[in-house]
Amino acid sequence: MPLYRIVSEPGALTPAQKAAIAEGVVELHLRLAGGARAFVNVLFETFAAGDLYVGGKPAPRMLMSASVRTGRTQETKAALLTGFSALVSRIAGVPEAELLISIGEVRPENAMEAGHILPQVGEEEAWLRKVGHHAAA
Amino acid sequence: MPLYRIVSEPGALTPAQKAAIAEGVVELHLRLAGGARAFVNVLFETFAAGDLYVGGKPAPRMLMSASVRTGRTQETKAALLTGFSALVSRIAGVPEAELLISIGEVRPENAMEAGHILPQVGEEEAWLRKVGHHAAA
Amino acid sequence: MPLYRIVSEPGALTPAQKAAIAEGVVELHLRLAGGARAFVNVLFETFAAGDLYVGGKPAPRMLMSASVRTGRTQETKAALLTGFSALVSRIAGVPEAELLISIGEVRPENAMEAGHILPQVGEEEAWLRKVGHHAAA
Repeated sequence: MPLYRIVSEPGALTPAQKAAIAEGVVELHLRLAGGARAFVNVLFETFAAGDLYVGGKPAPRMLMSASVRTGRTQETKAALLTGFSALVSRIAGVPEAELLISIGEVRPENAMEAGHILPQVGEEEAWLRKVGHHAAA
Repeated sequence: MPLYRIVSEPGALTPAQKAAIAEGVVELHLRLAGGARAFVNVLFETFAAGDLYVGGKPAPRMLMSASVRTGRTQETKAALLTGFSALVSRIAGVPEAELLISIGEVRPENAMEAGHILPQVGEEEAWLRKVGHHAAA
Repeated sequence: MPLYRIVSEPGALTPAQKAAIAEGVVELHLRLAGGARAFVNVLFETFAAGDLYVGGKPAPRMLMSASVRTGRTQETKAALLTGFSALVSRIAGVPEAELLISIGEVRPENAMEAGHILPQVGEEEAWLRKVGHHAAA
């Protein structure tokens, strides 16, 4: 965790744009929500051209989501939404009007990474030591 | 929001069936849950043939989901489930026994569309004016 | 329900590995959470090679999730996470360090399968009779 997903038509993003978004998301998430670089996941997925309908008509929107642990403040989540939207809009050259973004919250005890159940928000340091990572990594 | 997703094997739905489902979902959602046509998203996705297992054996089911804002009554959600199932079954010619459908609820303050955090259920009018859409659109 | 999903790069799993994981998930879920074999869904999905970034760099992780009804104890969910992780790690030959797993909980009244709204946890028997299945099936 976190897991950020961006779903678009094939070819909507070049490899260089994907890499820039992935790096931008890492910086955004660490700055706003903390944690360690090695646990920020960004996945790009595609749907066949024409297979997203908006208001009954095909439309080339991008669908974005972020799965984060429960326990963030509403201010943090709003900043993540705003920052993620602006980042993808800027790098992909897509108006924010064509983006749909949602945050899904997962209780830390309902998720496992690197073979360990995730820590509560605020208890990352001890967990990172346990799995052999450092927050500065 | 809402976002309706239908995941099936490639070729399970023709372009005409997809368009009819997309239009039917818009009508269903506006009738039962209100909102504006321009914000009803329907996405068709595929998995490779044979890659869905049911009870340990490959089976050509369809997986469907609807992401809606929290705040709907249970009656509305049950009607959305029933209507969505019946719609896809009828247009795709698939028995309802082969459909798995779930509704995921997203807190409006955890989602952003058209560059704006979503409104609470019941507060759509002011939001639509803010983003430049009309409920009748 | 349940629906287990495994998302990986194409070719990460052979057909034989997928079949073994699908069968293993059925056994795991029935042993830990009960229910009927005919309602355990396992879906394998792919993303294009290089399209998952971890810490800003492409990494061939697997992303796994399980959607289950609300109402399970934390002990059951932890056992499902641990068992699912170990199962996929063993069959796929992937270290658990490369797996990210989460459990999503869906309120039974928000889901429909075989044309019927799902039962609460603990009320499966009557539901299975209603839809024409038996728990031993």
